[in-house]
Amino acid sequence: MTFQTKLAASIKKNNSLLCIGLDSDLEKIPETLKKEDDPLFAFNKALVDKTNDLVCAYKLNIAFYSAYGLDTLRSLKKSIEYIKETTEIPVILDAKRNDIGNTSELYAKEVFDFYNADAVTVNPFVGFDGIEPFLKKSDKGIIIYCRSSNPGAKDFQDLQIQGKPLYQKIAEKVVEWNKQYNNCLLVVGATWPEQMKKIREIAPDMIFLVPGIGAQGGDLEKMVTAGLREDKSGLIINSARSIIYASAKGDFANKAREQAEKVKSEINRFR
Amino acid sequence: MTFQTKLAASIKKNNSLLCIGLDSDLEKIPETLKKEDDPLFAFNKALVDKTNDLVCAYKLNIAFYSAYGLDTLRSLKKSIEYIKETTEIPVILDAKRNDIGNTSELYAKEVFDFYNADAVTVNPFVGFDGIEPFLKKSDKGIIIYCRSSNPGAKDFQDLQIQGKPLYQKIAEKVVEWNKQYNNCLLVVGATWPEQMKKIREIAPDMIFLVPGIGAQGGDLEKMVTAGLREDKSGLIINSARSIIYASAKGDFANKAREQAEKVKSEINRFR
Repeated sequence: MTFQTKLAASIKKNNSLLCIGLDSDLEKIPETLKKEDDPLFAFNKALVDKTNDLVCAYKLNIAFYSAYGLDTLRSLKKSIEYIKETTEIPVILDAKRNDIGNTSELYAKEVFDFYNADAVTVNPFVGFDGIEPFLKKSDKGIIIYCRSSNPGAKDFQDLQIQGKPLYQKIAEKVVEWNKQYNNCLLVVGATWPEQMKKIREIAPDMIFLVPGIGAQGGDLEKMVTAGLREDKSGLIINSARSIIYASAKGDFANKAREQAEKVKSEINRFR
Repeated sequence: MTFQTKLAASIKKNNSLLCIGLDSDLEKIPETLKKEDDPLFAFNKALVDKTNDLVCAYKLNIAFYSAYGLDTLRSLKKSIEYIKETTEIPVILDAKRNDIGNTSELYAKEVFDFYNADAVTVNPFVGFDGIEPFLKKSDKGIIIYCRSSNPGAKDFQDLQIQGKPLYQKIAEKVVEWNKQYNNCLLVVGATWPEQMKKIREIAPDMIFLVPGIGAQGGDLEKMVTAGLREDKSGLIINSARSIIYASAKGDFANKAREQAEKVKSEINRFR
């Protein structure tokens, strides 16, 4: 099954555009888990068990796992395996990988062969031949960085090229690349609803992965209104810290569920 | 000792601007090594033992190690440790990392705390706050992607902004960022000598990491002439495949040394 088919099924089944970001940091998970053999995996497993009927996707940012070395990368692999074995929810590996073609081949091996993710985020800076090794995995979702959610986004992404900012040029290019393999998505930060509206005009059918609600302060109503596709879908709305760290105690999974339910309903209120 | 001090010392001691790219691929190393406990480490160790009097730096591209999982990442860590323990040559981890600030903090942990690299390559697309967690490691070298060596470089890096291409805007911005921490370098592909000349005008004092000679076909004379600083230094010229795979047999390390000597001398001929 392709990523897009799997995603459409989970959106429908759970009536949800919410993606939980399992950006699980060894130094921030509840103390009660420290006694487990694999605390990070135990944290993710508890969250997945409690929330898999509320989400359309899980996103794991590899930075949180690679920061502490190889044991935590093993927890990442185990977490992805667990999600794929026990649920039908697609898994996005957020890795922002990028390099020239022969090196990108190896990154594609990493994310799809070793970690077995359903989709990956990539950075487009290097141009087509650096992205193609990912695109060729036609059953996978290739999610291309278009507009980031941070203040520094303006440094390069807003630079004007013949009257259009760079991020719009990227969206145009990705629409073109998508014709060949039909597996592209875009990363569009929730903190920029005006820009999201423009990108939706350029890519009316494409799915956007939207980070930046919750801790980063993006306005949900503005963002959903700006980004929703005509079919009331087309967004994967990621929330991480405000859900996974809803409680620092033993009740973290229940509190995460409560928070996830709240965010899911809020999103649906504006659909 | 800072990366820049360490680099200046190795350039002087070995009279060399050559950097060997230890892009060691488990599927491409000589058969004779397969019997070793850690074939990738054995390959790198043999290369380092034979070439550390010929180079100014070693660059290890993490993609080649992460593609096959955790054992090969362990070989990467072991290889970096070995270089640092047995030589005075600085180690560049080529990782093209990039994300928003709180995530970049974790990538900085990965490359500097876990792998203990002296320098890292990063992608600037996300803007200042995504780069700052790296820059703050003021004893490390932060090597920012400016102009890649591949054909697709033109897709975004050449887009004209008020009469100047994006890659020049990036170089200008990095010159500005460098004022605060004084630890920035730029990645400038060997395949684009005209563009390198422009970047040298914008950043007369900065060191460039130059991939793309050898297998990628960059013209050495044109590139060195375009990129050399007034002090006949300022370039770290990377060659990987044509050196490390100079022979596929048991004599690989000797053949690599011969090839490295040849490239080192060729570079020096144009200095």
